Amino acid sequence: MTERHTLHEDPRSGNCYKIKLTAALLEVPLEARQYDILQGETRTPEFLNNINRNGRIPVLHIDGDHGQRFLPESNAACWYLASGSHLIPDDRFAQADMLRWMFFEQYNHEPNVATLRFWLSIVGEANLTDQQRSQIMAKRVAGCDALRLMDERLANSTWMAGDRVTLADIALFPYTHVAESGGFGLEDYPNICVWIERVKTLTNFIPMGE
Amino acid sequence: MTERHTLHEDPRSGNCYKIKLTAALLEVPLEARQYDILQGETRTPEFLNNINRNGRIPVLHIDGDHGQRFLPESNAACWYLASGSHLIPDDRFAQADMLRWMFFEQYNHEPNVATLRFWLSIVGEANLTDQQRSQIMAKRVAGCDALRLMDERLANSTWMAGDRVTLADIALFPYTHVAESGGFGLEDYPNICVWIERVKTLTNFIPMGE
Repeated sequence: MTERHTLHEDPRSGNCYKIKLTAALLEVPLEARQYDILQGETRTPEFLNNINRNGRIPVLHIDGDHGQRFLPESNAACWYLASGSHLIPDDRFAQADMLRWMFFEQYNHEPNVATLRFWLSIVGEANLTDQQRSQIMAKRVAGCDALRLMDERLANSTWMAGDRVTLADIALFPYTHVAESGGFGLEDYPNICVWIERVKTLTNFIPMGE
Repeated sequence: MTERHTLHEDPRSGNCYKIKLTAALLEVPLEARQYDILQGETRTPEFLNNINRNGRIPVLHIDGDHGQRFLPESNAACWYLASGSHLIPDDRFAQADMLRWMFFEQYNHEPNVATLRFWLSIVGEANLTDQQRSQIMAKRVAGCDALRLMDERLANSTWMAGDRVTLADIALFPYTHVAESGGFGLEDYPNICVWIERVKTLTNFIPMGE
């Protein structure tokens, strides 16, 4: 039986876009079921009981020989789809270095670069809590640090890990290329700007939100 | 040439312990070079230029046929050491599900469970900034959510991913088993308590801080 893959997603989410971009580059069919996270649609009892107890999207839903299986965490879903493909290097160090940038993305990049975009462009600054507003400055500094580290890496390398495009590029592209909507000036990171254009020229590339 | 592995670490860090535990379980020799993060020893020009531009430990230092290579991010270092071993499942879904819990650890668990331990037991509550103090409540709630999710998983499963011990267990064990020093009551998570004792019985297990 051929596996059927469905992505439970919100199209505004860069974490969801990672998975769609991975599937597109690999020409793997991927269906989508959309939720509005601002309306609490991933916190319903149905979602919590059947899709993800964590109440979060994206979740990759795999329907195959082993029945219905659900895989939360965007980078794990990318790994599943790309397993055995050219998007994961065979070389032991390159593979670990790719994961290094994917963990960096979730720990240093996403909570700062993506969260400020979400707060400032999607929720709206006027709707933030005082607690959120008090964190903007720290997230700005940490987000700039993350972008600087990427820019330094890309000064000496065409891609984030190894010598060709990998999941590390796919994981970091979504929130980086829209970082300006979180108030980050990408002109300060010239190597990132060149890399963004490079990613866009990949065969089967799809833009965010489609 | 046999590779030589050196861990740049602070022995109080659970992220460093993950790597030492992985090496111990696999009987891979691992040297250590210690730093005191509270004294800024990972922010010196020498450290930033030679070990990690991110100014963070742990970093796995690999000395082998390809010269000196450095791998930051604890979970990526564990992946490198465990590559090809029984700590990484071969099955495609189990491998992705293991990574799912490792990304969860870095995104949902560590910034809450580990950060509160660091703030309350190592820095000391009296020394926190107002900004840090204002985040304690939110981190308490998010940390409890992360522990609850683990506990639910362990209600139906002996190990976090697949059907035997994997890097998912090693990544989640360090900060979970000392969560009480961050003010989390582990008695609320009975399945976690049983799992902690199970991890301690693994052949070649080593405790934290050694």
